[in-house]
Amino acid sequence: MNTTTVKAYGTLAADQDVKPMDIQRREVTAKDIEIQIMYCGVCHSDLHTARNDWHSTTYPAVPGHEIIGKVTKVGSEVTKLKVGDFAGVGCLVDSCGTCPSCQQDLEQYCQNGWVGAYNGEDKHLGGMTYGGYSQKVVVDEHFVLKVPANLDLAATAPLLCAGITTWSPLRHWNVGKESKVAVIGLGGLGHMAIKLAKGLGANVTLFSRTPDKTKDAKELGADTVIISTDEEHMKSVAGTFDLIIDTVPYVHDVNPYVGTLNTNGTLVLVGYLGPLDPILNTVPMIMGRKSVAGSLIGGIAETQEMLDFCGKHNIVSEIEMIKMKDINTAYERMLKSDVKYRFVIDMASL
Amino acid sequence: MNTTTVKAYGTLAADQDVKPMDIQRREVTAKDIEIQIMYCGVCHSDLHTARNDWHSTTYPAVPGHEIIGKVTKVGSEVTKLKVGDFAGVGCLVDSCGTCPSCQQDLEQYCQNGWVGAYNGEDKHLGGMTYGGYSQKVVVDEHFVLKVPANLDLAATAPLLCAGITTWSPLRHWNVGKESKVAVIGLGGLGHMAIKLAKGLGANVTLFSRTPDKTKDAKELGADTVIISTDEEHMKSVAGTFDLIIDTVPYVHDVNPYVGTLNTNGTLVLVGYLGPLDPILNTVPMIMGRKSVAGSLIGGIAETQEMLDFCGKHNIVSEIEMIKMKDINTAYERMLKSDVKYRFVIDMASL
Repeated sequence: MNTTTVKAYGTLAADQDVKPMDIQRREVTAKDIEIQIMYCGVCHSDLHTARNDWHSTTYPAVPGHEIIGKVTKVGSEVTKLKVGDFAGVGCLVDSCGTCPSCQQDLEQYCQNGWVGAYNGEDKHLGGMTYGGYSQKVVVDEHFVLKVPANLDLAATAPLLCAGITTWSPLRHWNVGKESKVAVIGLGGLGHMAIKLAKGLGANVTLFSRTPDKTKDAKELGADTVIISTDEEHMKSVAGTFDLIIDTVPYVHDVNPYVGTLNTNGTLVLVGYLGPLDPILNTVPMIMGRKSVAGSLIGGIAETQEMLDFCGKHNIVSEIEMIKMKDINTAYERMLKSDVKYRFVIDMASL
Repeated sequence: MNTTTVKAYGTLAADQDVKPMDIQRREVTAKDIEIQIMYCGVCHSDLHTARNDWHSTTYPAVPGHEIIGKVTKVGSEVTKLKVGDFAGVGCLVDSCGTCPSCQQDLEQYCQNGWVGAYNGEDKHLGGMTYGGYSQKVVVDEHFVLKVPANLDLAATAPLLCAGITTWSPLRHWNVGKESKVAVIGLGGLGHMAIKLAKGLGANVTLFSRTPDKTKDAKELGADTVIISTDEEHMKSVAGTFDLIIDTVPYVHDVNPYVGTLNTNGTLVLVGYLGPLDPILNTVPMIMGRKSVAGSLIGGIAETQEMLDFCGKHNIVSEIEMIKMKDINTAYERMLKSDVKYRFVIDMASL
């Protein structure tokens, strides 16, 4: 298969910085779209992969799965976009297409294994996929999204992961005008959860460990901020929420939040992969038909739906633009939660 | 308030046997129905309450909340039943009627506290309610069920708790002809879960620790029996079930069962109240949008729906009839799971 060499930023080992390298991109096949990358959001998963935190990284690794760019080439059978259109690519670039999950537009739960934008098994070139910290990317049109014309392109990039990861549970659990939604954690995912839930008409509460974030949360659209370390404050919202979106990416006690769910309510984990320690208590779950669930990004059709919704409601991420060469500093700042609320790389700086 | 003395069986302390005693029942008020009790099922909760396992028993305690009998008196405003009709009473005998849960026919999640058939706060006489191990009971008509004429009365009694406790999650999670349902545990609840899921048209699997129960499970309607202690057997059903009804009443590891849920599947706990030990792992939950939930009995409208469904499909519990005086022996046998599948007391023996 013919390939083109393109510039990228990636890592060669867990203990090394992200630095310039050359990678290969395939020539477009019949169903492929080639995209000149303009902006790439910086997700915590990028950092986890670069540093092999999940013990699953194959090096070299080129992170980046919040990709916005311009179409530069299309295959002979492509109908979704044409050269010159703006396009988005998120976490998914391939899946089997035939399993029950794929058939239901749930490619993120592909039972034969979906392929990530990076560190996934590349079905075309072999080896691993390389992500958005690069000049160009070539993706099957099924996994390419249309970008609403009215949105700020750089601030749209984080919708491709942070946006859809919170949108999917909001839609799956039928959030609307009558809903009471709470969000745990005010980072890249949390701030999008507030904006999207508010956009859907819900009453939105942020749970925060300290009052510091109250002003910001309200500016983002939260109706209420509850200080989770204040027992009385927590009691005041007992039995309240229909859906809690828990964006916290590290181990934490979910039991106090389960107590704030309404009858039939669900707490959905979107950030933390691992053992639920301290131990979950079933008593409040049984006494109120409450659920604890997990949710992973979202399907392609749902991602398009979210982008269209954001276009209609003029919703984008709050971002801080960085140059490609500053990615390592950005990672360090992310580890200290020193970003409001998402770094986006201006890929012209590559 | 005028009362009548009726014979009952109850306990005076956690370490004492259940034995004969006299209790008071109120005279019917405008909305009340008085029922001559014919049969009373024996639930594990009866035993837990008699022996104060939940540290919440007020003595004297008269257990029994799977009650079938004949109407002997009705209040002036009663419209649901008339003298001579057969009637059922389950776990609930009162609730606030005004909270959002009660307004949605979810009296079992009453936000102001529902009143149990026994060991609940009696709003009429003060003190605690007394259950079905007695000659008569007086209950507000809202909490009295109509019994389909074609069903065996004794075998209908367990539907009022074991039946509705498994019916409610089957209905809440929309089980139907396309559904794959699994049941963990083959006791009073588990055997009803199999019959009701099968009645709804689902494909039904029983998880069992040993092959001993295979023949019985299939006779009850299970399509498949999976031996949960056999790793290969468990692997064969990975990603299979839409709903798992977990009836196990003691602490156990739910993680292996979560792995057998399909995308969007739910494991619902109906038997075990307490910490979920070993610790639940969120990874498979996030990777397949799976939920772990709890569910408590069912509402009154839903209980009537279940009884009507059982009438139509001729579904009742498998029972072993006992005399009232043998209740203490029955408790000992229940502790050894030596019952297929529910003891029912012939109250004529009181």
